[in-house]
Amino acid sequence: MARPRAIPTTADAARLEADQPHSEVVRFDASRTLPLDSGQTLSPVQIAYQTYGALNADRSNAILLCHALTADQHAANPHPVTDKPGWWDLMVGPGLPIDTNRYFVICSNVIGGCMGSTGPASTNPATGRTYGLDFPVVTIRDMVRAQNMLIEHLGIETLFSVIGGSMGGMQVLEWTASFPDKVFSAVPIACAAKHSAQNIAFHEVGRQAVMADPEWLEGRYATEGKIPRKGLSVARMAAHVTYLSEAALQRKFGRELQERDQRTFTFDADFQVESYLRHQGSSFVERFDANSYLYITRAMDYFDLAVDYGSLPKAFADTRTRFCLVSFTSDWLFPTSGARDIVHALNAAAANVSFVEIKSDKGHDAFLLDEPEFFATVRGFLEGCARARGLP
Amino acid sequence: MARPRAIPTTADAARLEADQPHSEVVRFDASRTLPLDSGQTLSPVQIAYQTYGALNADRSNAILLCHALTADQHAANPHPVTDKPGWWDLMVGPGLPIDTNRYFVICSNVIGGCMGSTGPASTNPATGRTYGLDFPVVTIRDMVRAQNMLIEHLGIETLFSVIGGSMGGMQVLEWTASFPDKVFSAVPIACAAKHSAQNIAFHEVGRQAVMADPEWLEGRYATEGKIPRKGLSVARMAAHVTYLSEAALQRKFGRELQERDQRTFTFDADFQVESYLRHQGSSFVERFDANSYLYITRAMDYFDLAVDYGSLPKAFADTRTRFCLVSFTSDWLFPTSGARDIVHALNAAAANVSFVEIKSDKGHDAFLLDEPEFFATVRGFLEGCARARGLP
Repeated sequence: MARPRAIPTTADAARLEADQPHSEVVRFDASRTLPLDSGQTLSPVQIAYQTYGALNADRSNAILLCHALTADQHAANPHPVTDKPGWWDLMVGPGLPIDTNRYFVICSNVIGGCMGSTGPASTNPATGRTYGLDFPVVTIRDMVRAQNMLIEHLGIETLFSVIGGSMGGMQVLEWTASFPDKVFSAVPIACAAKHSAQNIAFHEVGRQAVMADPEWLEGRYATEGKIPRKGLSVARMAAHVTYLSEAALQRKFGRELQERDQRTFTFDADFQVESYLRHQGSSFVERFDANSYLYITRAMDYFDLAVDYGSLPKAFADTRTRFCLVSFTSDWLFPTSGARDIVHALNAAAANVSFVEIKSDKGHDAFLLDEPEFFATVRGFLEGCARARGLP
Repeated sequence: MARPRAIPTTADAARLEADQPHSEVVRFDASRTLPLDSGQTLSPVQIAYQTYGALNADRSNAILLCHALTADQHAANPHPVTDKPGWWDLMVGPGLPIDTNRYFVICSNVIGGCMGSTGPASTNPATGRTYGLDFPVVTIRDMVRAQNMLIEHLGIETLFSVIGGSMGGMQVLEWTASFPDKVFSAVPIACAAKHSAQNIAFHEVGRQAVMADPEWLEGRYATEGKIPRKGLSVARMAAHVTYLSEAALQRKFGRELQERDQRTFTFDADFQVESYLRHQGSSFVERFDANSYLYITRAMDYFDLAVDYGSLPKAFADTRTRFCLVSFTSDWLFPTSGARDIVHALNAAAANVSFVEIKSDKGHDAFLLDEPEFFATVRGFLEGCARARGLP
């Protein structure tokens, strides 16, 4: 659990999290290295994680949550840097769909992240300096390998469920392919088995925005005491537009002006949507590492389960995992068609699969928001799996 | 017509175009100022334009083409900076849908542009320096007012047609509202009567990318001999993704790697789509002015015909113009719903309107590409109007 601490919301505070997070950590030394898809090996490896609820006696009630691109292990507790509620505060807790009275919930920061798991913002023990671009490029499979090290460390042989949205959903799919016998049930949400050309294109825009900032310093900004704030802010703004639907932007902002009656005929943030985006950008840079943004977007771009396993049905061959796929009607970043491709592959593998397309106008971000039908779907699926698993 | 010239493709060459373009120009001195929506007045005003074909004796065969955000007056001749074909080379010419054997075609650079019409890249005669941010913020209506000055200068009382896509379509709509008696027919393509919250959001990302570049220098880069290349390049990349459909990106690039067999596990442009976008960004900055990008995106964001005229039907009240609206099925930036809103308003105004939704997977850019059904639509509509107008 997070040690409670009140700290100012600053990038400095965020930076401290990379090595010494307000989370449980497990450190693996040279006796337990992490082999990477690139052929490189990462060592030492630190994994920062949060847990909620209690592990039962036969260790059969553990749920692993996999977080999205800019999230972290703080799924259901106040964030140690921003002090905001956890990103899945509505989903995870006592009596909530992922019920911590019933399940033992684990959420770890991904490798490549910046909230305590080893990543480009961590100190490289070989040099005593921040890794920066000396950190190896990692993949979704590498993230899952690291999570498996954590799960083994916790003494858990089989996860009752692995659940996540967006990049978290990619990890869920990778878990079922990499460790099929360790995943009793899986809930991949608002994701796809590969990153599309459009997805890659938007990520590349964000990376170029970061790299265009002279304070990025070829990735060495941390050792020089700089932060590429403007570039990372632009990257976040561009990405944020893709997380919302056109309808959601229209409903929230439309063409409403920001605290003024008339257009100013300047480049000020006349429109509310401009002001909102600028805030999204500037607040993001206070909590997130720019290099982590590069590494994690790259991991998503590289994700292509069919290529890694020969074909999508092969990725799921002989799976005994129970799947529940979820998509949202207005999610144009990870549209329903991508979920259907997975369902077809699972059907070809004769898997146990259910699939729900949730009607929502909230876009990709719907999986983080108050969507009662979505909550009911996850709750119901887990209850069915719990019965099958013999959980009380 | 453009004076033919072979010059190297450089930003320097582009910069020269702002004051001394390779186009016909008309200069209006203090006796003919341009009143702006902001309340300011622009003077002197220079308008750079190209013409194709010949004006007939009774001056009844003139078609005004209105260009989109990053285009210019070079619709159907090689571009003087890039030497590439005109942006509507497929549409405008002898025997083509906009047939220069039959019609006298005019295309002028918009006010705020950088290819010879007065804009932020022009020299401010009051200071002898480039305007930069001293240039007043202009609107779509201001652009149309300037075009009207050109049309009057050319001695044309009524335009046979006004035609344009995207921002060009906004100008077409504005022409029919501002000067209803001067527009015999109008073809607004891939546009809307207002810029949506999502449209504004993407533009704001682009503006912030430009302004984040330290070489932007608060807009004074030209007088300091700098160019905010990286910022403008990122802005262009972000915008370019929105001009294509997901299907078009998938068909053109998919997840194909760029001149390599394997992922490099670096931040190089591994994927073709990354390489393509980087090229789009870097080539754009060689021909376009960063401040013009700010001004023209702002003009689009401010566009809202219903607000300007009280309501959308009022904007078209008593119109006698013949309308042909065109949208494209895969255009998610200006979707068909926006065209339908215009059609409904025109119906409420009892206007003569036809509307075609073209099936295409090419996204917003479809109006610039080889789309036979689209070409046939424009050709057929103009032929019908020519008969009604008594043109041979």
